[in-house]
Amino acid sequence: MKIALIQHSVRANKESTIEATAAMVKEAASQGAELVVLQELHQTPYFCQYEDTDLFNLAESYKEDVAYWAQVAKENGVVLVASLFEKRAPGLYHNSAVVFEKDGSIAGKYRKMHIPDDPGFYEKFYFTPGDLGFEPVDTSVGKLGVLVCWDQWYPEAARLMALKGAEMLIYPTAIGWFDKDDEDEKRRQKDAWTTVQRGHAVANGLPLVAVNRVGFEKDESGVLDGIRFWGSSFVCGPQGEMLAEAPSDKEVTLICDIDLARSEEVRRWWPFLRDRRIDAYGGLLKRFID
Amino acid sequence: MKIALIQHSVRANKESTIEATAAMVKEAASQGAELVVLQELHQTPYFCQYEDTDLFNLAESYKEDVAYWAQVAKENGVVLVASLFEKRAPGLYHNSAVVFEKDGSIAGKYRKMHIPDDPGFYEKFYFTPGDLGFEPVDTSVGKLGVLVCWDQWYPEAARLMALKGAEMLIYPTAIGWFDKDDEDEKRRQKDAWTTVQRGHAVANGLPLVAVNRVGFEKDESGVLDGIRFWGSSFVCGPQGEMLAEAPSDKEVTLICDIDLARSEEVRRWWPFLRDRRIDAYGGLLKRFID
Repeated sequence: MKIALIQHSVRANKESTIEATAAMVKEAASQGAELVVLQELHQTPYFCQYEDTDLFNLAESYKEDVAYWAQVAKENGVVLVASLFEKRAPGLYHNSAVVFEKDGSIAGKYRKMHIPDDPGFYEKFYFTPGDLGFEPVDTSVGKLGVLVCWDQWYPEAARLMALKGAEMLIYPTAIGWFDKDDEDEKRRQKDAWTTVQRGHAVANGLPLVAVNRVGFEKDESGVLDGIRFWGSSFVCGPQGEMLAEAPSDKEVTLICDIDLARSEEVRRWWPFLRDRRIDAYGGLLKRFID
Repeated sequence: MKIALIQHSVRANKESTIEATAAMVKEAASQGAELVVLQELHQTPYFCQYEDTDLFNLAESYKEDVAYWAQVAKENGVVLVASLFEKRAPGLYHNSAVVFEKDGSIAGKYRKMHIPDDPGFYEKFYFTPGDLGFEPVDTSVGKLGVLVCWDQWYPEAARLMALKGAEMLIYPTAIGWFDKDDEDEKRRQKDAWTTVQRGHAVANGLPLVAVNRVGFEKDESGVLDGIRFWGSSFVCGPQGEMLAEAPSDKEVTLICDIDLARSEEVRRWWPFLRDRRIDAYGGLLKRFID
């Protein structure tokens, strides 16, 4: 199966950004992609660089946004993973991934469960932690374990998706560097990001797709300089082997073949699920064991 | 703190093997190592290549083995992680890691929890799964999260050690290639092994030490050719960054500096433990969620 990862930068406004993205989806579909994955909060700049109540306005259009991407999925006949700012009720917002079927219907939704908060990434202000749990989305191209960004650091999230039958792990994400960090620190950060996700693929015997935004986005509050999103979207197979990788500084549609049948083969060699010590894992439900 | 990883091949018999290993420990201590980690079942060939009840005899000397390595720890004034075949009762055996203090006392013990079984690695025949849980061992050089080999594929094991306050993850191991596999497959296997462990370091903000045996060991049953243990012992830091790595085909004492204080720094930047969704992890205690 051909999949496409669309790694892009933001345009001058939302309208031109989503038009450009829709054109990239169309191009991906014309190249045979059946599954297209977009980056985290792909319609706008990464607005969590500072806290501003006015920015909740970005979620007001959630229903129209869903309708828009449903139409894009339908027109191109692809399963599409979009990442949207969801207004659920006044004062209640989520960072949600919506999965559309080839006919434009909603196959399922995931609300980001792990919410980060650190300087430049003030997500706890904007996003209520998800309450839908870790549920893969059943689609015509397989059972998709869709997670979002910060989730990618949590082996628990990947494992739960695998235990619920996910055939692939998918992470729309928005992660980047601060220019002030030195090159060694930048390299360690990006390597850690790639490595921990490849580790999830290995531990669960599943292919994994991570789609990150690219380009510099200024911190409009002026407190920090801004974030240089490091792109480097990638696909790895069920042994964590890299199948495709995007550059760190360019917009790109990365097209890659995935063989879902390979997971069965790899899991026969490395039957990790067989030997889990579920009798001894109770402590995983604790914050810390002291 | 200086640590030493002793990656070696087996000699003609147990006596000459342990003498050579003890000499390597002495050399490591003379170079300033305070913690020395030995590979899995380092006293003998990896005997699990076939099933033979006579091989349980190898565990008969468990008490003498403990006394021997206690003496080596004491003579060299190092904390020592040894990996021994433990006879606990007639017909009841474990794959155990014993941790010795600098004065030769036993600081603690870990019994391998996850037991593999696949052609050439018939461990379920020899080893009863551990019943001591995932408990770090308190020593004068820190709280050591000692795990063994197959455990290294399980994020749950690493996480539980971290939640119990481990300051370092340590894996004595015995893993290698079958010569009949092609080079691509061999590369994928070794990369997966390194990657999943580096991933544990990242996810938990802890340094990690893996010590593997090296050299070819024939399958004496004649069913398979044998295993070419791939060495490649390594140390990585709490961002998964490689700090030291041994060759895949040579005996070596790898000495490396570890800064345990760096974990605090890394965990402040990446506070993964803060955001775990323990309210939503119940499924981790199930075999599969269907």
